[in-house]
Amino acid sequence: MSKIFVFGHQNPDSDAIGSSYGYAYLKRQLGVEAEAVALGTPNEETAFVLDYFSVNAPRVVESARSEGVNQVILTDHNEFQQSISDIKDVEVIEVVDHHRVANFETANPLMMRLEPVGSASSIVYRMFKENNVEIPKDVAGLLLSGLISDTLLLKSPTTHASDPAVAEELARLAGVNLEEYGLAMLKAGTNLSSKSAEELIDIDAKTFELNGNQVRVAQVNTVDISDVLSRQAEIEEAINSSIKSNGYSDFVLMITDILNSNSEILALGSNTDKIEKAFNFVLENNHAFLKGAVSRKKQVVPQLTESFNV
Amino acid sequence: MSKIFVFGHQNPDSDAIGSSYGYAYLKRQLGVEAEAVALGTPNEETAFVLDYFSVNAPRVVESARSEGVNQVILTDHNEFQQSISDIKDVEVIEVVDHHRVANFETANPLMMRLEPVGSASSIVYRMFKENNVEIPKDVAGLLLSGLISDTLLLKSPTTHASDPAVAEELARLAGVNLEEYGLAMLKAGTNLSSKSAEELIDIDAKTFELNGNQVRVAQVNTVDISDVLSRQAEIEEAINSSIKSNGYSDFVLMITDILNSNSEILALGSNTDKIEKAFNFVLENNHAFLKGAVSRKKQVVPQLTESFNV
Repeated sequence: MSKIFVFGHQNPDSDAIGSSYGYAYLKRQLGVEAEAVALGTPNEETAFVLDYFSVNAPRVVESARSEGVNQVILTDHNEFQQSISDIKDVEVIEVVDHHRVANFETANPLMMRLEPVGSASSIVYRMFKENNVEIPKDVAGLLLSGLISDTLLLKSPTTHASDPAVAEELARLAGVNLEEYGLAMLKAGTNLSSKSAEELIDIDAKTFELNGNQVRVAQVNTVDISDVLSRQAEIEEAINSSIKSNGYSDFVLMITDILNSNSEILALGSNTDKIEKAFNFVLENNHAFLKGAVSRKKQVVPQLTESFNV
Repeated sequence: MSKIFVFGHQNPDSDAIGSSYGYAYLKRQLGVEAEAVALGTPNEETAFVLDYFSVNAPRVVESARSEGVNQVILTDHNEFQQSISDIKDVEVIEVVDHHRVANFETANPLMMRLEPVGSASSIVYRMFKENNVEIPKDVAGLLLSGLISDTLLLKSPTTHASDPAVAEELARLAGVNLEEYGLAMLKAGTNLSSKSAEELIDIDAKTFELNGNQVRVAQVNTVDISDVLSRQAEIEEAINSSIKSNGYSDFVLMITDILNSNSEILALGSNTDKIEKAFNFVLENNHAFLKGAVSRKKQVVPQLTESFNV
């Protein structure tokens, strides 16, 4: 069997990097020639994580076939438009994920392990346990970071009842204090001042096909929403330019306050009526407050899906 | 939480019935109000199984919502066109399956447990083990039958390296001799003489959407292929009538010799050129021999998928 690539989604976040890094390690221990690669460079939060645990960033690849790879394992995503460019030309042999399923299809049976838990890293942790493979310190650190990142330190409604125990065990194995490390890591991701508006709207952005519309949903974390909104004019310019060049019907930016667990939604595009209906709010000057919302997956995408499907 | 339906695919076979019956039992032991239902009446093989283990056939339901059920668990299938009529109006909270993934989409994250093994029943067996729940005799019997049925007594290429041990353990729990029981069960499913041609082509039939075409692929088991071919005229009439009334582009019937592990392919429809190309054979009088082919999933559907996508 030739080499297998293991990777998370485009615009990788700490869970995409952590789950793919950890799962590739596990597969190697089980005798499979697996390499963790990435579909983009790490964001600032993930860069902090990699530096903290002295792990080199997985190399960025553009396609699998050009590297002589025909079989891939997806972690932390399944939708093809969030995956590697030549996903339709390779065989997906496994998926480890915690998202909804959509725009995913295979010709052959495969191993698919999806659980509605806080992070893909939580599932990878469980697979280490099931296979009785020891988790080294760096892998534990990256898996822990994936879980902290996706659940905003276990505060997001996406946190599963089983996640806190996973976080505690991983923190022990990684040799860190969960709260202290978690907050430092999340804060590292809120440093937006060095980013251009174009970079900011692409830090953590995914495209969803909603009833024929290409809807881009991006999220940035901050400790002060007004800080981000002070740059509204240049952000809107970047969004409108992105809509034009990528053919998105809509662009939804979640500006998430990680300390108070709320989000401001900034929305531009052709279906703002549907977006207002989805969240039962009125956009003023293109934005509105969404109390208690921190999870794109649970508090934004399902609502948009339903609203766009009416 | 209100009641949850657990069911296999339309035209249920022994694995659809066995895996849903077993998994609903497991969920109930874990405190979930789950009922195994079926999307059709048992075929002759499954009727033999149910009678052997004194299990009543799961009741047949037409839709979930009309029964007040909003959440469902799918076993042994995931493609919506093989599922309950109102699948798009309910929430799929779990899938336990061993098929390729296609035409499947959710709005929310879910539990999905797919493995490329011989039967969905094999996976359900493993989930009993993982949850430390004892498998009662009737459940063991039904799970065993699902595995025997789908792998033609462990002879199909879909048999996974882990399946023989599963079969042995289940046979022990069910109190049967694997070989003797297996052959008796498979033979019970080859009694086609009492079936009309319309019934015969619908015993085990699934629709696949291949590049925009609705392709029906049916399979019947026999101990003598020529026996079935002696009815070719009335079978073709039934197929043509089914194509017309259901809008299929093509109808592929696998006539599988369970003793020698070969199939005769009978194909009618608009794309017989693509079907010939898929199997690298020439249809004569609408049929051709496919040596060693017993698995629709592994030896027919992927080949058709590729051929139709060119």
